[in-house]
Amino acid sequence: MDKPSVAFQGEVGAYSELAVLEHFGQEITPIPCHMFEEVFVAVTQESNRLGLIPIENSLAGSIHHNYDLMLHYNLHIVGEHYLRVSHCLLGLPGAKLEDIQIVRSHPQALSQCEENLKRLGVEVIAEADTAGSARIVRERNDPHTAALASRRAAQINDLQILCSNMEDNPANFTRFLILASHPYQTLDPDSGDYKTTVVFSLKNHPGSLFKALSVFALRDIDLTKIESRPFQGKPWEYLFYIDFTGHVNQTTCGRALEHLQELAPFIRVLGSYPRHRMDITDVPISPYNVP
Amino acid sequence: MDKPSVAFQGEVGAYSELAVLEHFGQEITPIPCHMFEEVFVAVTQESNRLGLIPIENSLAGSIHHNYDLMLHYNLHIVGEHYLRVSHCLLGLPGAKLEDIQIVRSHPQALSQCEENLKRLGVEVIAEADTAGSARIVRERNDPHTAALASRRAAQINDLQILCSNMEDNPANFTRFLILASHPYQTLDPDSGDYKTTVVFSLKNHPGSLFKALSVFALRDIDLTKIESRPFQGKPWEYLFYIDFTGHVNQTTCGRALEHLQELAPFIRVLGSYPRHRMDITDVPISPYNVP
Repeated sequence: MDKPSVAFQGEVGAYSELAVLEHFGQEITPIPCHMFEEVFVAVTQESNRLGLIPIENSLAGSIHHNYDLMLHYNLHIVGEHYLRVSHCLLGLPGAKLEDIQIVRSHPQALSQCEENLKRLGVEVIAEADTAGSARIVRERNDPHTAALASRRAAQINDLQILCSNMEDNPANFTRFLILASHPYQTLDPDSGDYKTTVVFSLKNHPGSLFKALSVFALRDIDLTKIESRPFQGKPWEYLFYIDFTGHVNQTTCGRALEHLQELAPFIRVLGSYPRHRMDITDVPISPYNVP
Repeated sequence: MDKPSVAFQGEVGAYSELAVLEHFGQEITPIPCHMFEEVFVAVTQESNRLGLIPIENSLAGSIHHNYDLMLHYNLHIVGEHYLRVSHCLLGLPGAKLEDIQIVRSHPQALSQCEENLKRLGVEVIAEADTAGSARIVRERNDPHTAALASRRAAQINDLQILCSNMEDNPANFTRFLILASHPYQTLDPDSGDYKTTVVFSLKNHPGSLFKALSVFALRDIDLTKIESRPFQGKPWEYLFYIDFTGHVNQTTCGRALEHLQELAPFIRVLGSYPRHRMDITDVPISPYNVP
């Protein structure tokens, strides 16, 4: 039988591919996709395929486009994964840090390394993604150009790591969601450590969000995240995405959602999934690693 | 005496400049800035200067970087302005719609016109901003390339409007905030229609957001927006930005903020300002205007 496959956005060597490998190990086949939406399509079309998408970065905030896609495609969240993001400066083999004049990367990576790049006195050029910028450095074969990308992108493109931990702030984590076309069977929802993600709309009345949150607060259910998004086509009306601890099949959580249905014109449970507890003990202490 | 000046991000012809001209008329001097942060610096350095920044688009959501900058710089919100965003396809004079092969613009404008661009069967190239893409079309002098930008960018760059209302969804509005180095004096806060923006942090306890919202709900104060942002350097702790109706110098609002201070380790009022009521009656009915 074929190995199960996991679709992700980006090229081989992207942080999303790293998250796929960390979460699933070598027992799966990563499938690179050009756009986020292709990940959703790939999972929809193939029952043996999962998807992995970034949803939030600890510095940059939420990836809103993926919230919109979750609403548009009828997939289920079956897991989450936290990845520590550490950018390396990658040059051609033999290139020297002091010779680098141009650094290419995704705008978010460039922005996360802004102070360290200023210290190097280089010009920056925005590219579509980090792994792609490593490939471009390899293709152009120019010893004065470097890319900001992952350690894995260095291996894949045969580049040299000129400097690691380039990010100005080491508290840089990305949370990924695992998507499937069907929810996983959970035999005993009370026995595990779960999270649930739900999306709902509210009428634009004073106190409506307060009442919606009361369905969780009155039942001592802990919210781990709240996000509002414009309701497309209804200017300044909002959809709310909420993550809370617990499984939709636990009695208390089920009752909270029934209560929420009384208040929300639209509601959809996007999934209940095992909580990923991140170990953050290996975060470097000093944010400044550029010589 | 010099005319007062208003700093905005982008080139002449950018949507931000349009908002400056709509809000202030011709009695001010618009000052183009390359980066959002330069707008904040420009207002900080010159007491007679205001700034205007986009904070939210009805389709794309909030511009999070500007929320972070509002926290970093000690400026005051003194106004807001809603602008209807309508993208035009701009080509060289004499260019024909059917000859266009490449369309350049800011990624958000390209994404807002995705369906209409697909119908035209063109290749898209991302640029740093919409007005800049119009300038590039003029500079390259290639009749097969067009830009998505404002009507004003056509005038400024001597380009021809090949097609207007290119956006797939006409419910496309951007909300801008007006920034000043000092709050405006408001003689009678009870007499007007005001909004207040406040930012605060919360401890990561179950129910903490519910309690924070209760200070408004219990006083019948209407929230118009809530936004959460990562607390930089504190992974997965959040700051909340809330807009509510009313002025900080109104008794009820002042008491709500005193109550919020009991719950929030950090709180700052970013400003109270006259509410802008947008007239949306001129929104075109059909979203599809490409022949």
